[in-house]
Amino acid sequence: MSELKKVAVIMGSDSDFPTVAGAIKTLDKFGVPFEVHVMSAHRTPEAAAEFSSKARENGFGVIIAAAGKAAHLAGVLAAHTTVPVIGIPIKSSTLDGLDALLATVQMPKGIPVATVAIDGADNAAILAVQMLALSDDKLAAKLADEKAAMKNGVAKKDQAIQDKVNELING
Amino acid sequence: MSELKKVAVIMGSDSDFPTVAGAIKTLDKFGVPFEVHVMSAHRTPEAAAEFSSKARENGFGVIIAAAGKAAHLAGVLAAHTTVPVIGIPIKSSTLDGLDALLATVQMPKGIPVATVAIDGADNAAILAVQMLALSDDKLAAKLADEKAAMKNGVAKKDQAIQDKVNELING
Amino acid sequence: MSELKKVAVIMGSDSDFPTVAGAIKTLDKFGVPFEVHVMSAHRTPEAAAEFSSKARENGFGVIIAAAGKAAHLAGVLAAHTTVPVIGIPIKSSTLDGLDALLATVQMPKGIPVATVAIDGADNAAILAVQMLALSDDKLAAKLADEKAAMKNGVAKKDQAIQDKVNELING
Amino acid sequence: MSELKKVAVIMGSDSDFPTVAGAIKTLDKFGVPFEVHVMSAHRTPEAAAEFSSKARENGFGVIIAAAGKAAHLAGVLAAHTTVPVIGIPIKSSTLDGLDALLATVQMPKGIPVATVAIDGADNAAILAVQMLALSDDKLAAKLADEKAAMKNGVAKKDQAIQDKVNELING
Amino acid sequence: MSELKKVAVIMGSDSDFPTVAGAIKTLDKFGVPFEVHVMSAHRTPEAAAEFSSKARENGFGVIIAAAGKAAHLAGVLAAHTTVPVIGIPIKSSTLDGLDALLATVQMPKGIPVATVAIDGADNAAILAVQMLALSDDKLAAKLADEKAAMKNGVAKKDQAIQDKVNELING
Amino acid sequence: MSELKKVAVIMGSDSDFPTVAGAIKTLDKFGVPFEVHVMSAHRTPEAAAEFSSKARENGFGVIIAAAGKAAHLAGVLAAHTTVPVIGIPIKSSTLDGLDALLATVQMPKGIPVATVAIDGADNAAILAVQMLALSDDKLAAKLADEKAAMKNGVAKKDQAIQDKVNELING
Amino acid sequence: MSELKKVAVIMGSDSDFPTVAGAIKTLDKFGVPFEVHVMSAHRTPEAAAEFSSKARENGFGVIIAAAGKAAHLAGVLAAHTTVPVIGIPIKSSTLDGLDALLATVQMPKGIPVATVAIDGADNAAILAVQMLALSDDKLAAKLADEKAAMKNGVAKKDQAIQDKVNELING
Amino acid sequence: MSELKKVAVIMGSDSDFPTVAGAIKTLDKFGVPFEVHVMSAHRTPEAAAEFSSKARENGFGVIIAAAGKAAHLAGVLAAHTTVPVIGIPIKSSTLDGLDALLATVQMPKGIPVATVAIDGADNAAILAVQMLALSDDKLAAKLADEKAAMKNGVAKKDQAIQDKVNELING
Repeated sequence: MSELKKVAVIMGSDSDFPTVAGAIKTLDKFGVPFEVHVMSAHRTPEAAAEFSSKARENGFGVIIAAAGKAAHLAGVLAAHTTVPVIGIPIKSSTLDGLDALLATVQMPKGIPVATVAIDGADNAAILAVQMLALSDDKLAAKLADEKAAMKNGVAKKDQAIQDKVNELING
Repeated sequence: MSELKKVAVIMGSDSDFPTVAGAIKTLDKFGVPFEVHVMSAHRTPEAAAEFSSKARENGFGVIIAAAGKAAHLAGVLAAHTTVPVIGIPIKSSTLDGLDALLATVQMPKGIPVATVAIDGADNAAILAVQMLALSDDKLAAKLADEKAAMKNGVAKKDQAIQDKVNELING
Repeated sequence: MSELKKVAVIMGSDSDFPTVAGAIKTLDKFGVPFEVHVMSAHRTPEAAAEFSSKARENGFGVIIAAAGKAAHLAGVLAAHTTVPVIGIPIKSSTLDGLDALLATVQMPKGIPVATVAIDGADNAAILAVQMLALSDDKLAAKLADEKAAMKNGVAKKDQAIQDKVNELING
Repeated sequence: MSELKKVAVIMGSDSDFPTVAGAIKTLDKFGVPFEVHVMSAHRTPEAAAEFSSKARENGFGVIIAAAGKAAHLAGVLAAHTTVPVIGIPIKSSTLDGLDALLATVQMPKGIPVATVAIDGADNAAILAVQMLALSDDKLAAKLADEKAAMKNGVAKKDQAIQDKVNELING
Repeated sequence: MSELKKVAVIMGSDSDFPTVAGAIKTLDKFGVPFEVHVMSAHRTPEAAAEFSSKARENGFGVIIAAAGKAAHLAGVLAAHTTVPVIGIPIKSSTLDGLDALLATVQMPKGIPVATVAIDGADNAAILAVQMLALSDDKLAAKLADEKAAMKNGVAKKDQAIQDKVNELING
Repeated sequence: MSELKKVAVIMGSDSDFPTVAGAIKTLDKFGVPFEVHVMSAHRTPEAAAEFSSKARENGFGVIIAAAGKAAHLAGVLAAHTTVPVIGIPIKSSTLDGLDALLATVQMPKGIPVATVAIDGADNAAILAVQMLALSDDKLAAKLADEKAAMKNGVAKKDQAIQDKVNELING
Repeated sequence: MSELKKVAVIMGSDSDFPTVAGAIKTLDKFGVPFEVHVMSAHRTPEAAAEFSSKARENGFGVIIAAAGKAAHLAGVLAAHTTVPVIGIPIKSSTLDGLDALLATVQMPKGIPVATVAIDGADNAAILAVQMLALSDDKLAAKLADEKAAMKNGVAKKDQAIQDKVNELING
Repeated sequence: MSELKKVAVIMGSDSDFPTVAGAIKTLDKFGVPFEVHVMSAHRTPEAAAEFSSKARENGFGVIIAAAGKAAHLAGVLAAHTTVPVIGIPIKSSTLDGLDALLATVQMPKGIPVATVAIDGADNAAILAVQMLALSDDKLAAKLADEKAAMKNGVAKKDQAIQDKVNELING
């Protein structure tokens, strides 16, 4: 699957790494090539603009951007490319991530950011894989397998919960 | 470009049509094939599940879902497919669209919805086109052209604003 | 009271069990028959649809559904049945349960979900018992007894608080 | 169906009537007997307590309470009865109904209120009918018919939307 | 000052005592007579109505009511008396007290509740003392003394902060 | 009743007058002497401080302060007096009055503001009358009369609603 | 005063002009030189970066940036300059400006944006003048004059309100 | 740089010191003279008014004000001076700082407060330095140096993150 386009995972601060790790592990599990960077819309705006402007020619198919507070990173990257940009709003010390969510999702007409849940790094990666799978049937099959595995996981938990209920009721 | 995958535009209620129209016109402008449907996660759940389950084999590459209030439509469609689903939260008569935004974007691990701004139908379409353009260079070129045109539009408005400023100051 | 209809308690994830336990214990206290399941609107949508579609014929009188974040579970179950569905919005790691509350309560016209407080599992069970008690006088009497006991409990706490006040003031 | 228990529809102010009318018409459509009252948790607390305390013996099976702002009506009625109480939060001139929603739904342990969407009067009535239908198969059948009709309605709108789309695209 | 009217301090649950303690200690400091009770708008509505209806004739000049979540207590007490009622919204496990604030302050026309800050028990007591001091010059003088002491306290903290600043800068 | 203390009604801007008018009319109805002023915490801070500092000696028993946005007026007046201050948060063009509510009610320890509902001018006046009535039995009697009249008003509306219901159902 | 540094007024969209006009008129009233531009953080990111990077050498002392929704403009401009940037959050069709406020004010450590009220264009200009007045005594004197005029204006409104009160009370 | 104007750092309570310390250290790093005070808009209003009224003649160029809850401090200081006032909203025990943010930023026309992020003390200091640097080229150069250092810091973190990624993926 080496002909797959790469996914860029950009975080606004290295303090976001523990959350973003979920995206990295998911991409790795699907065998999708990726690069990870720390870049800031505010502290390294030129680097961010440069990276995004050349993302397509450098072989990137999707950009994932994670940032907190006044989360401009995804929007700023989206401004410089036509590659789809996925935004992960990061919860920080105040406002429970609402600021990052609104700053990421409420993009003006013309420049979309595909926003996932607050701290939803795993889903950002799955969404990126879904995009790449549009033209890669093997990847689509992997997604279907993963979906089936997830379904089985819930079915097993449904069985396991019966024991917990018995214990709760009968001590 | 007839080999392009189709985009499905699903709205939860036909009262969402005036907002969703922006997505339809944008898809048409880019020459992307699409189908439009009224389906409800709550009123026609079987039809929604059926449509989504067969979306990939029926040639759909992206699903756009628009719904208001407790907006479950995008999530319910995403539950049945590995095709990327884009959610448009629709503003209704109360809470200014915040309910639809949270009900669309805060998806649990495993089932992402690519959420755009409240009432952001145009951006949903552009995002869909960006996804399809991952494997279609002509479409990517169209996106780049559109982005350049948008840039020129702002530059022209910058010139035009000088007259408005003069009028404001000098009467 | 074996002729009573059953209550289904469905949770979207087994991580909701500690909260949902309050509902289970309350149903057990009232002697109401119940079943507990882990089912997800997004991960096992077919199972959820199947369960709900057959709930009435399988002897269920009420469905209680607990879910967090973009909490679609109660609404999805309600879509497939005319049995009353009670929704418990679960607080998760961000937004303090507001997302789950709005995603549960703001249902569109035609498909109600009887929503209780965030993490209000006990009340969901009491509400289910109240519904079943509409046609069961013994159960209604039990509810009245419980209400009286609750009243006495507060009266005792009112007496006990006088000691705390004395201690606070007089050391 | 004259042996059906009655539904009480209580509004905190007669200014809520235009919204509450949806509940009344729905109850009437299902042939459920009902009484409508204006009572206030704050202006006529004795009347509200009296009504609720005697609701069961007076033949009421469900109470629907609609109120805005610091909406205490449903909770106050629920305090005096074991009959299930459905709360409709009414949107008033500020805060878009959020105040009424929280004041209605966030009930403490022991006293549930089955809360529906802001201004969701129709759904309050449907929920009441669902409760009564637990022990009335004819009513359950009517609910199923109504659900099927609703489904057909959406299917017709799906067909009709194709014309609107054609008009939008082709002028 | 034995002729002073009493202040009633009512809490909806004895779990509110740690917060309400601040009000009790403040009333005690000002030498204002008071009674403390646990009463619930929902669990002991008759006791609450009874207490409030007779508050004036029983010598109460002000009622302080503390409650969390769908905080109806202050409003319900205010419904039964013309004595001023002060509401303390209590922060509970979700929504950070916003639910209690809105449920306390957004009272309909005709029945005011004098609302203080979330968990603002001390201020509720000071406000009660201010009301009683309208017709008691000694109490008014005590309030003025307390205000002056508070002012001096801040002035001393202003001096003390200089040392902290020096330590911060110079190590 | 000429020996009654006066109520000061202060508004931060004369644009608040239409809302504040409800307070003035209510005070006038109860025969309570009052003064009305436009003063701003930010534009005329000295006048506000001066007024408040001398409020007690100038015969004021209560101060009502109405302001919108970052509503500091009530708090600033309260800083300079021990007379109880009632705050009316005014809804302005954005945020639906939430900003004014929080800026009025969330006062720090030591300086309470008795906050009423957003735009709740009538209630501010009733609350002021309740405070004055603590030492004036005639005023207390008027309040009781008004409360009874309000109760009768609701009872009449309850009768009138029956006609509206008949018209709704029977055309 | 020709040696004064210029103020740049940048708006993200020409639809913001009616709101931004208040800033322009205020700057003009104070005789401060200014330039007005339409530039977008998302549509013309290079122009915005270029303008901001050269703002200091091009004689700008302050930048005012107005934008709505996911308002990144002020932050993006601040990323490229050490000139102080003032942000005006613009209210758009949803969420009442809360999105723009949070996206403007919640800037990460290192890159401040001086945020004023939602739609607070006049105050943005006054703040810019205050900054320039730090090194210009004439401008400081103008600000003091303006502040005095504002004070007089309120005093006049205080007088005028007495007539309105009389009319309200006496008809 | 002794001719630089001073920055006043005012906190409403000494409990704000740990947060405000970030501003003090930043001012010290830039070699800007400053004074730190504890003053309260509500507890020491005269001291606050006095300080602010004389701020300009006492050599202050900027005032930084930090306060929580109904944060009036910045606005009250701004009322008495034409020196620019920067507001730091402080997060307190409830509402996550939203109350302080709105009470600080939503200032009425005529009296701006330059608001930074909740708990954004460092940025308040940088903003103050930016203002002083308008007429001080050395300070402007320091700001540029600091910005460059920040940029380098992010670049280093970008390199360091590669190791973390390798560890995450390869164990």
